[in-house]
Amino acid sequence: MDFAYDTVTEDLRERLLRFMDECVYPAEPAFEEQAATSGWSTPPLMADLKDEARKRGLWNLFLPGEHGAGLTNLQYAPLAEIMGRSPTLAPTATNCAAPDTGNMEVLSMFGSEWQRKEWLRPLLDGEIRSAFAMTEPDVASSDATNIATSIVRDGDEYVINGRKWFISGAMNPTCKIFVVMGKTNPDAPKHRRQSMILVPRDTPGVHIKRGMHVFGYTDADHGGHAEIVFEDVRVPAENLIGEEGGGFAIAQARLGPGRIHHCMRLIGMAERAVELMCKRALARSTFGKPVAQQGVVQDWIAESRIRIEQLRLLVLKTAWLMDTVGNQGAHTEIQAIKISTPITVEWILDKAVQVHGAGGVSQDFPLAALWAGARSLRLADGPDEVHKRSLAYRELKRWM
Amino acid sequence: MDFAYDTVTEDLRERLLRFMDECVYPAEPAFEEQAATSGWSTPPLMADLKDEARKRGLWNLFLPGEHGAGLTNLQYAPLAEIMGRSPTLAPTATNCAAPDTGNMEVLSMFGSEWQRKEWLRPLLDGEIRSAFAMTEPDVASSDATNIATSIVRDGDEYVINGRKWFISGAMNPTCKIFVVMGKTNPDAPKHRRQSMILVPRDTPGVHIKRGMHVFGYTDADHGGHAEIVFEDVRVPAENLIGEEGGGFAIAQARLGPGRIHHCMRLIGMAERAVELMCKRALARSTFGKPVAQQGVVQDWIAESRIRIEQLRLLVLKTAWLMDTVGNQGAHTEIQAIKISTPITVEWILDKAVQVHGAGGVSQDFPLAALWAGARSLRLADGPDEVHKRSLAYRELKRWM
Amino acid sequence: MDFAYDTVTEDLRERLLRFMDECVYPAEPAFEEQAATSGWSTPPLMADLKDEARKRGLWNLFLPGEHGAGLTNLQYAPLAEIMGRSPTLAPTATNCAAPDTGNMEVLSMFGSEWQRKEWLRPLLDGEIRSAFAMTEPDVASSDATNIATSIVRDGDEYVINGRKWFISGAMNPTCKIFVVMGKTNPDAPKHRRQSMILVPRDTPGVHIKRGMHVFGYTDADHGGHAEIVFEDVRVPAENLIGEEGGGFAIAQARLGPGRIHHCMRLIGMAERAVELMCKRALARSTFGKPVAQQGVVQDWIAESRIRIEQLRLLVLKTAWLMDTVGNQGAHTEIQAIKISTPITVEWILDKAVQVHGAGGVSQDFPLAALWAGARSLRLADGPDEVHKRSLAYRELKRWM
Amino acid sequence: MDFAYDTVTEDLRERLLRFMDECVYPAEPAFEEQAATSGWSTPPLMADLKDEARKRGLWNLFLPGEHGAGLTNLQYAPLAEIMGRSPTLAPTATNCAAPDTGNMEVLSMFGSEWQRKEWLRPLLDGEIRSAFAMTEPDVASSDATNIATSIVRDGDEYVINGRKWFISGAMNPTCKIFVVMGKTNPDAPKHRRQSMILVPRDTPGVHIKRGMHVFGYTDADHGGHAEIVFEDVRVPAENLIGEEGGGFAIAQARLGPGRIHHCMRLIGMAERAVELMCKRALARSTFGKPVAQQGVVQDWIAESRIRIEQLRLLVLKTAWLMDTVGNQGAHTEIQAIKISTPITVEWILDKAVQVHGAGGVSQDFPLAALWAGARSLRLADGPDEVHKRSLAYRELKRWM
Repeated sequence: MDFAYDTVTEDLRERLLRFMDECVYPAEPAFEEQAATSGWSTPPLMADLKDEARKRGLWNLFLPGEHGAGLTNLQYAPLAEIMGRSPTLAPTATNCAAPDTGNMEVLSMFGSEWQRKEWLRPLLDGEIRSAFAMTEPDVASSDATNIATSIVRDGDEYVINGRKWFISGAMNPTCKIFVVMGKTNPDAPKHRRQSMILVPRDTPGVHIKRGMHVFGYTDADHGGHAEIVFEDVRVPAENLIGEEGGGFAIAQARLGPGRIHHCMRLIGMAERAVELMCKRALARSTFGKPVAQQGVVQDWIAESRIRIEQLRLLVLKTAWLMDTVGNQGAHTEIQAIKISTPITVEWILDKAVQVHGAGGVSQDFPLAALWAGARSLRLADGPDEVHKRSLAYRELKRWM
Repeated sequence: MDFAYDTVTEDLRERLLRFMDECVYPAEPAFEEQAATSGWSTPPLMADLKDEARKRGLWNLFLPGEHGAGLTNLQYAPLAEIMGRSPTLAPTATNCAAPDTGNMEVLSMFGSEWQRKEWLRPLLDGEIRSAFAMTEPDVASSDATNIATSIVRDGDEYVINGRKWFISGAMNPTCKIFVVMGKTNPDAPKHRRQSMILVPRDTPGVHIKRGMHVFGYTDADHGGHAEIVFEDVRVPAENLIGEEGGGFAIAQARLGPGRIHHCMRLIGMAERAVELMCKRALARSTFGKPVAQQGVVQDWIAESRIRIEQLRLLVLKTAWLMDTVGNQGAHTEIQAIKISTPITVEWILDKAVQVHGAGGVSQDFPLAALWAGARSLRLADGPDEVHKRSLAYRELKRWM
Repeated sequence: MDFAYDTVTEDLRERLLRFMDECVYPAEPAFEEQAATSGWSTPPLMADLKDEARKRGLWNLFLPGEHGAGLTNLQYAPLAEIMGRSPTLAPTATNCAAPDTGNMEVLSMFGSEWQRKEWLRPLLDGEIRSAFAMTEPDVASSDATNIATSIVRDGDEYVINGRKWFISGAMNPTCKIFVVMGKTNPDAPKHRRQSMILVPRDTPGVHIKRGMHVFGYTDADHGGHAEIVFEDVRVPAENLIGEEGGGFAIAQARLGPGRIHHCMRLIGMAERAVELMCKRALARSTFGKPVAQQGVVQDWIAESRIRIEQLRLLVLKTAWLMDTVGNQGAHTEIQAIKISTPITVEWILDKAVQVHGAGGVSQDFPLAALWAGARSLRLADGPDEVHKRSLAYRELKRWM
Repeated sequence: MDFAYDTVTEDLRERLLRFMDECVYPAEPAFEEQAATSGWSTPPLMADLKDEARKRGLWNLFLPGEHGAGLTNLQYAPLAEIMGRSPTLAPTATNCAAPDTGNMEVLSMFGSEWQRKEWLRPLLDGEIRSAFAMTEPDVASSDATNIATSIVRDGDEYVINGRKWFISGAMNPTCKIFVVMGKTNPDAPKHRRQSMILVPRDTPGVHIKRGMHVFGYTDADHGGHAEIVFEDVRVPAENLIGEEGGGFAIAQARLGPGRIHHCMRLIGMAERAVELMCKRALARSTFGKPVAQQGVVQDWIAESRIRIEQLRLLVLKTAWLMDTVGNQGAHTEIQAIKISTPITVEWILDKAVQVHGAGGVSQDFPLAALWAGARSLRLADGPDEVHKRSLAYRELKRWM
């Protein structure tokens, strides 16, 4: 048992931290300004950041194997945390932003040679963005068997009909390709009914209806969260990823690393929140003494530190399990971090907001927006409660 | 001891509930649509609602004495709860919306005859709106002695300089008058330094800079939350409310009823959240059974009911105390409801959001926006923590 | 709506408070000393306290109607709170201690003339104690239909077989009579199977096995919590209370007032805890300043005050409902106070313990023992979770 | 970074687990029976368990260096967890029980040759027990500078006067030696005033007054928690451990490993609680379905698993830090585990109690007693709040 990062990780952490200090944090104010007038498009300065990151060898770090940086989950995780400190800029700048990461993984593992050339290549080069269309408004999609979108074979084509929403990134016009989950085999066994298929943005019948809000945020600088109607959308049969009925298995494979990334980025946000909370508490005085000397605020700071340390270790151990025993063996831990990270980071962000007073809820600090992101992750991929139930069943089974 | 509402209250409750059912709830969708294109102005259908409310005798119910409906705090409180079920429409429709209510109270109690004619009259008639400019970005304004805006006598005028923010309602162009708190007597004893003064919106030197966001929301349909710079703003000396140095006392007087209103409206929101949570839980199924049969969801529903019942009683008792022993005698209770209501209602709204899945955080349900409102009330008028400290001191003093 | 106690209540409160100050609190240390050597019997000084209370007209205050003081639930509730401040002495001293109170109510309402003469009379006079034998070790007795003890008619007698535990008070040799719940009619509809029957302590076949502990406490000064085996116990048929199959209905009737008493006493304990917490915080210093100036301790004190105020109002309203619309109409509220009071008072006691340091968990302060009492009430009459589920069903039904 | 135990640890874990299964768990009922009649002495069967453990090479595992098993903190920690599953038997059986462990460490590191021969030897052999006399009733001893017991040099002797309480183990007559902390140099700098000195139990002037309770428990089978008065107690000067004024430094050195042990044992208790909770939930039915299918119970089980996994990792990392960078470098983590472990395990035990119904609070399951132990650790070595404050200061300092 050894709690030190290996040298590859340490080296990349250092370079990434330098990139954050030299390029990312200084770009935040200008990015926000540009975002105010960019609509659903990516603010222009992102292109420069991407060039710079690529030049520095901080590119596609998330992707194992030959197409990416070849890091293990355990090696990448601490880098995701660092990126999470500036979640609007750093992941995109390094081509490590969701949902592209998951989509690249899927194409890299399950894509045909043609699919990889056509879609993986430009994604790896950061030339286009992509989306993952799973959640549906009309059913509780935490239960994947509820998914109602139909994908029907018709000659050399598949015809897609259905309504999706909260399709992150899809409002951005550079988001050129959607990975769509739907039912191809409604009569197959429960977990062999779904398939995943590639649908280019400009395919006739793809109607991008509107951007969903998350609390009051449109998240336009991330490409928003689209509601999309697929109405008799036809794509060539070769757009199917893997085989018919393989959708659930692909979704599962996609899930594990994505959870690690999300959780580590959340931990990065939490670290930033603690930093802001401490700085504010040191800078402000009320009733004649610095806020930093208020016992309740100290309690929040201590609790935040303690909770972050525990969370990070659990996420890192999960990454290690995924590297050593695979997604299946890490099932409990993957659920555990999915459940515990967003709610804990939400708590920390809430306290940081409180220390900032009215300013904390406003656009003048990143805290309220980060909070909304953390809050919504208590629902993404199914509400925490569903995952807890499943985790409990596994625990109970040990004693049956 | 008697827990039944009196007949005046029961009669008004019935009429108000009918107004909600017949006019307010049905108008919500259209209001939201109009709001999307109304900028900072009030959506036009509000005028009709106001006419209707006035016709029905549901007008200025909050205001005791001859200028208003003449209700006690205890009689008005249950009506405020009902209005809170549709907080964007009902309070404004009945001319019972903050911050006008507080401003009308102040003018009614402390205003000169001229001030009452000039500003109270059109406010009572719902012809104009008003704002209350207290909070400042540069100091922790939970401690009123921190307030830095200066109000300096110069001949027959006062000259005002300072920066205020989170001035609710002030972005709306029909918000014609600002009640501004500032320092007239910097050398007087701590609680005799501040004064309140009336500043018309169009006075030279009043710069309305921007609307502050609350978790992504601009609250444009309420007139937003303005940042305002007062730069050498000159108003006639007769604009001062009451006497020089009386600002703190007026603020205190203004506070009590406002807290009752806020808290009862929050309870109304909580009731609506429980209704939505139950309906959704009954309508949705996951993993083969209705969400309403999930034990954790039942737990939330039960907890919500229990907490609401307790809160409501405490707020009503506080109203009764204010009616019988006055603001001073109700000090502990006024603080207690200020501390306990927003955080409890926030908790209930959070659970209602969770039951709604992704939709819960979006614009398709009112829950996320209500949540942001409740959350921000943990900070308004000073963070809860400041009030707890003060309440604890009073408790400790009993045993010294 | 009126939050003031009526004059009857105010008068009794004053007299009771005086009795507490003059007789009860001063007797606490000696009582504890005597208890250390009294085994399962009541320490001798209780007899004097009882005489004194009776002399002062503070006797059987809990009992409505001609047999008792004739108070309403709402009038008695504030007196129960005061007694709860010294829960080991005051309720017994005033003949208002559970489970005698519930048993006297049952006999008063449902007992035959003979039963009243034989058992109610000496109970009213405080000459004997009684127990209520409901809970069973082998089944989840929160669900009364689970109760397995059999009561079988055999000629002029009933024969009782079963095992009960946590029968409070039954270890005390002066506890002469047990009200036993069991099944007489196993084939009747679910809620018509149980009956209640009177079993004198010295009946052959009644085996008092042992005292159950509650977090290490035997509660010997209350007569402990007995495990009792009933083995072919024969009692005359006239010992049956009411009619065969009426047990469930009697249990329900017994429940409401008991919950009010328990909850108000818990609130009294909470008030005492706040007093002790404040006094200790004022008296102790750490790191150069009084504990009372620690922000976290202030937060606890404020929260305690706020929670107590809310709880008390809810319990009082429940009492009022029981007086005005009866047990059925007060169903939700009775459950609500059963759920919210013990856990809230437990929280307050925990904080008071923490402020007392190591002493807080010990026999030198009453806090740890009070805590154990509050904690066990989260389980008594069924765990809170069962009650929450039932309360939630009722809430959901409103929207079906 | 590597989350697997090394082979030494794995081997010892296996052997220890076998010892638990074959010897410890089976002995629990008989031990409890013997304890009921053993007074303050160790129940006799412990001697057999100790022989067996020693024979199996499971002896003094806690002690690094030549005197003990030579394990690192990281290697010992998982063994302490296993022992914690049966905390009354396993630690003593393996001679790894507090406070002997800390005392042996102190003597091993700071003891003179004579002290080691006289006291360390029999402790290592499990022939005698020892106690650590630090806490005082009259001062908040979380702040070591408050300690008032005086140790005054008088010729070749030291004279000790003071009152200590909660001296764990000291009621047991085989507890032959007390390590006493007191002031030798009241005028030295704050952290150079205290010394530690060895006081044999039978020294004249040592008055063992009584056993303190923890909730209702005397913990007699651990030798209780004594209140001891030292009245002109004279011991030879050679009994001083280390040098005059070195007490604080020794206390600090003693602290780190002790915290690891306590926390890992608590985690073992938590694991046992989860096991009992699951088994009970599977075995009991209410309202027609197993308790294990109640959503709220599942939620508790899941939360327990998640919290345990996080805690364990943090404690293990702390052990690793102590091994690699020392107590000083692990300061934040040592505090973090001290704060988070007892309260989390207390929460888990509370839920396990609740699932067990009334039985859960009683002597029929170990849960209530374990709960009391966990609860009291929120106070031992200073209340959590003091540690949080200190941790927060360190966090704030990073941003000053």
